[in-house]
Amino acid sequence: MRIAVLGVGLIGGSIGLATRRRADARVCGYDPDERVLAKALSLGAVDSAASDVAGAVKDADVVFVAAPVGALVETVRQALAGAGRDCVVSDVGSTKRLLADAVADERFIGGHPLAGAETSGVEHAREDLFEGAVWYLTPAANSTGVLYERLHRLLTTIGARPVAIDAETHDSLLAAVSHLPHVLANLLAAQAAGALGSASERRVPAVGPSFRDATRVAGANSAIWTDIYMANSDALIAAIDVFAQRLDDVRAALAAGDAEAVAAWNDSARADRDALLGAGLTGGPVSELRASVPNRPGVIAEIALALGRAGVNIRDMALSPSQDNSQGVVALWIGGERDAARAEELIAGLGFPVARA
Amino acid sequence: MRIAVLGVGLIGGSIGLATRRRADARVCGYDPDERVLAKALSLGAVDSAASDVAGAVKDADVVFVAAPVGALVETVRQALAGAGRDCVVSDVGSTKRLLADAVADERFIGGHPLAGAETSGVEHAREDLFEGAVWYLTPAANSTGVLYERLHRLLTTIGARPVAIDAETHDSLLAAVSHLPHVLANLLAAQAAGALGSASERRVPAVGPSFRDATRVAGANSAIWTDIYMANSDALIAAIDVFAQRLDDVRAALAAGDAEAVAAWNDSARADRDALLGAGLTGGPVSELRASVPNRPGVIAEIALALGRAGVNIRDMALSPSQDNSQGVVALWIGGERDAARAEELIAGLGFPVARA
Repeated sequence: MRIAVLGVGLIGGSIGLATRRRADARVCGYDPDERVLAKALSLGAVDSAASDVAGAVKDADVVFVAAPVGALVETVRQALAGAGRDCVVSDVGSTKRLLADAVADERFIGGHPLAGAETSGVEHAREDLFEGAVWYLTPAANSTGVLYERLHRLLTTIGARPVAIDAETHDSLLAAVSHLPHVLANLLAAQAAGALGSASERRVPAVGPSFRDATRVAGANSAIWTDIYMANSDALIAAIDVFAQRLDDVRAALAAGDAEAVAAWNDSARADRDALLGAGLTGGPVSELRASVPNRPGVIAEIALALGRAGVNIRDMALSPSQDNSQGVVALWIGGERDAARAEELIAGLGFPVARA
Repeated sequence: MRIAVLGVGLIGGSIGLATRRRADARVCGYDPDERVLAKALSLGAVDSAASDVAGAVKDADVVFVAAPVGALVETVRQALAGAGRDCVVSDVGSTKRLLADAVADERFIGGHPLAGAETSGVEHAREDLFEGAVWYLTPAANSTGVLYERLHRLLTTIGARPVAIDAETHDSLLAAVSHLPHVLANLLAAQAAGALGSASERRVPAVGPSFRDATRVAGANSAIWTDIYMANSDALIAAIDVFAQRLDDVRAALAAGDAEAVAAWNDSARADRDALLGAGLTGGPVSELRASVPNRPGVIAEIALALGRAGVNIRDMALSPSQDNSQGVVALWIGGERDAARAEELIAGLGFPVARA
């Protein structure tokens, strides 16, 4: 199978590595940045480097467009123009209606792998980046069945889990669970900065991890995120409108002094998050342990080692240092009741106070 | 010095331990829950247990009221009624105007230590819980100077950093950096649950850590948080109103298709967060490293050990597992440029791709 990858950063490079090694494909890469393309070649992410889109896609069976959202439409069009009649062209952009609306070609099937959001650059490319990852596919009504089947099978071969979804639902979903959280994090950072006054006096009190966690994604890479916000602006606006209404509802409960309504709302949010993350993200119930530890080099290692030796996997972890970093609380998320109980026992055995959250 | 602690959970118990061991104080405790009181006594958090508030405060030089927010006013009033003329009465509640408005006694000085938000229960009490922690004090205009000085000195003795602030500013500040983030986390969890439809189909796509981080505090303990929300409702409503306006501003930029404004807003949020957390919370610039790792027992230990051996302290850490937990990205926050560079080198030396975020 011949594959063309247009844009050989983290995602494109990983597609190259995965399809070369797992699907025995020959991969031709193209990137507008020559240094990136050379690096991809030297890392073995592509077999050969093309000097333009047409050259890359000429003999391809499958084309992946891994360009930034802002360049997607143009690059997909170029790919379709240069590719053969029996070639499937897909992309990896994080919003999907943009292309669905702009491209009517039956050879085009939009895609979006849920992987690699945290790093960038071909130097982070990995053969196993898509192992177990959901890979949304957004076929249009006129997409060719045999091409869909080819793409689906290829993705399965490299370890991904293709899931068909219509472009509209995809974009609403991502607006709710990804784009809106980014917007809120930005607003919260700005508002706290405003509330804390001039820069010289700025201090965030160490009130636990809430502010840090809530703003962790604030100001994510503007080059990528501006495109995402703009490309999905209508779904994001719809999500913002729902959110604003919800915010107004809780404001009303507060203004009315309705403690019962506030408590019920809070309980319901806990249930929602547990349902979403406990059962969804991690594939099973997850327990949260919180241990009080001195914040010195070695403590995390000590805990992680003890759990590792016992075969207990840490699914998620968050440290909350005190203001002077002398101490802290480490939160650990452990899957499965047995492992959680074992982890609790092991941490207590190390002399650190620990409890279920 | 004689100290009374009313409510001997995590905070009260830690005050007991700290003042007994560091200020050579005799501590009398009271708690409406007899089992908690007995536990505090057996753990050495108090020297003696009183059967009521009056008995606890009778001969005290300093009284700390560590009751839930909802019981604060009544308990402080009882303490003032039972305490001597030369006794200072303080509290540890997370909202401060409530008491400032309800109590006019010159012996009362409100307080709020920024510590221990992540755990609860006297079994987590620690002598060093307040080491380096900001401890807000909200003296009123009529508060007695000599009593303020006594309280301030005692807090310094147990390692805390007392900071005087007026009750109004305190509550606005906490609304912005703590209460509002909790509200947003709740709303986001509810909205995502709504967007994802019926429970059986709920799945949060593994779009990186944004949703998980943004909702980490969703549905925090209702028994505590409902009181906090209600006690600080007007400051929280004011914060919500500012937030709603900011949300509307970004909505307008999105609706107008103004990519430049959106990019500038995003950049500004990044600068705000860096300023707030980089310089504020951790006392110096912090670098964020992101490493790609297989998600198996032992990996975190391996990294933490390597850094620990080199004397590099991990200030904060977040794991972002893939959907099937087979792999992930670990984000590490390291203080100081030299340590960050060393950490990057060490992690790369272990064979994990790593980069500055």
